[in-house]
Amino acid sequence: MNRMAQPLVAVDWGSSSLRAVLMDEAGQILQRRQFEQGLLQLQPDQFEPVFEQHLGDWLADGQALCLISGMAGSRQGWCEAPYCPCPAGFDDLKPRLLWLRPRLALVPGLHAINPTHGGASAAGQDDVMRGEEIQIFGALALAGLAQAELILPGTHSKWVTVQAHRVQRFHTFMTGELYALLSQQSILARTLVPTSTLDEPAFRAAVELAQQGPGVLAHVFGTRTSALFDRLRPEQQASHLSGLLIGEELRAIATEGKSGSPLLLVGSAALTERYRLALQCLGQPCTVINEEATWAGHLALARSLGKKESTP
Amino acid sequence: MNRMAQPLVAVDWGSSSLRAVLMDEAGQILQRRQFEQGLLQLQPDQFEPVFEQHLGDWLADGQALCLISGMAGSRQGWCEAPYCPCPAGFDDLKPRLLWLRPRLALVPGLHAINPTHGGASAAGQDDVMRGEEIQIFGALALAGLAQAELILPGTHSKWVTVQAHRVQRFHTFMTGELYALLSQQSILARTLVPTSTLDEPAFRAAVELAQQGPGVLAHVFGTRTSALFDRLRPEQQASHLSGLLIGEELRAIATEGKSGSPLLLVGSAALTERYRLALQCLGQPCTVINEEATWAGHLALARSLGKKESTP
Repeated sequence: MNRMAQPLVAVDWGSSSLRAVLMDEAGQILQRRQFEQGLLQLQPDQFEPVFEQHLGDWLADGQALCLISGMAGSRQGWCEAPYCPCPAGFDDLKPRLLWLRPRLALVPGLHAINPTHGGASAAGQDDVMRGEEIQIFGALALAGLAQAELILPGTHSKWVTVQAHRVQRFHTFMTGELYALLSQQSILARTLVPTSTLDEPAFRAAVELAQQGPGVLAHVFGTRTSALFDRLRPEQQASHLSGLLIGEELRAIATEGKSGSPLLLVGSAALTERYRLALQCLGQPCTVINEEATWAGHLALARSLGKKESTP
Repeated sequence: MNRMAQPLVAVDWGSSSLRAVLMDEAGQILQRRQFEQGLLQLQPDQFEPVFEQHLGDWLADGQALCLISGMAGSRQGWCEAPYCPCPAGFDDLKPRLLWLRPRLALVPGLHAINPTHGGASAAGQDDVMRGEEIQIFGALALAGLAQAELILPGTHSKWVTVQAHRVQRFHTFMTGELYALLSQQSILARTLVPTSTLDEPAFRAAVELAQQGPGVLAHVFGTRTSALFDRLRPEQQASHLSGLLIGEELRAIATEGKSGSPLLLVGSAALTERYRLALQCLGQPCTVINEEATWAGHLALARSLGKKESTP
């Protein structure tokens, strides 16, 4: 691997936390820091002082390059870094880095316009991400791939198609948020026992059920009726609901057509394990890549900047 | 039409209200009453005194027959009237009426076990209704049909297949409840302006969009991104979301296969109008039948009982 011209301070500044690492020129992580101060806790004018307070020492000697990805670059963040349109690779991102200082840049999120067919939506359907783009490039670097399908599970799960090192298109699924709403606030909450322990048989059966008609709006109600007829115990219902929603997401992805590219599942162990199981139910192999993808992405971007482009 | 042997007190006692009519022997409605005292407001031992208080005078002379449909017959209601299994017509319902008094019966709800294919769900998926069965039979009577597909929109929308005067199977969709959760409690609520006024072009476009990939979990998130890119004004977003969810319900129904039977849309004007518009977008004709279906259903059931069977 090529060495960088300087140390790297890589920052993932999201909705609810600020995570950062300090890397040496070889890309080795020397220190890690995390603070529960994200977009939801901060006003725009607090970003710079919070940054200085927590990470200022890493930049004090003026040597390090600093890249910040995530919601810090949104309209409500430190400063708005306008979205980079897809298809997007490093060559597209680089001219759109928002340099706040000679060696400190915000990484823009991505904007896709997914094609729709006919009718009033013929203009296409917008989709956006902020922060995931760095995880995607990191996952590709770790897997040594230029072409892949990626799933990044979460509150708003992302399904991403990469060809020739560039994100071609992506779709956001409200899988995680809907799971929370349905399990906590809907009629299902009357019998469902919230638990993070997975009942694997119940989960697998629900993933399979989701591949059949008559659609997720009916299937989720079935969680309630299955409880009424004692076909699901209260402690199985959360796993059943989880399987239905993840199963629906994977059904929709499969319906859109297989690309033949390798499938990467990117995220924390807790998030990726259920998707891995669900993909296994559907006979779909995948490679799991953990959260280190974030730092691999920052490193790959920093390396691609080269000495000349690292300052504006 | 044949005359009944006695007047009829028809009661629709649901989750949130008690509605009742008094009919003469010819089936003419003489009086109507409504009280906001339903399953959610009452304890089981309160049903009988509440009934006496509000409707006792209609039964005082011992002449009238009284039929009660809806959640009053559930486990948490007046008394549990066990579900009647599908296929179910009047001949199936009649022996399962729960006679609380010589001339007062609870009408049981229906239970369907919908076939699933393979895997751990091979036993089939249960579904239930209470109250809608009377609306269904009433709608069939009003339309003069023995065979139909019916949609009863609502918090938990029902899609029903009737052949030879019997409910063969049905599916419940969480369309209405999900609309409420997403518009009020999800990330969409940050920009969506709640309104019951329909933006018809936005609604139609969303119904069409819902027929395409990549599924409803992605489409609903699109409401948010369309707002971010000013493709939907805040006051259009509720109509867009409504069109996506109703469109998904109709997509799932269509995917299950057309029966060729006439399609009846049963419910209040407010509930049926959006479904009628959505069906129109999809080139599907339908007949709208209003809430009087409830009383037509009670009347048809009472007539079918005949003099002998009207007492146990």
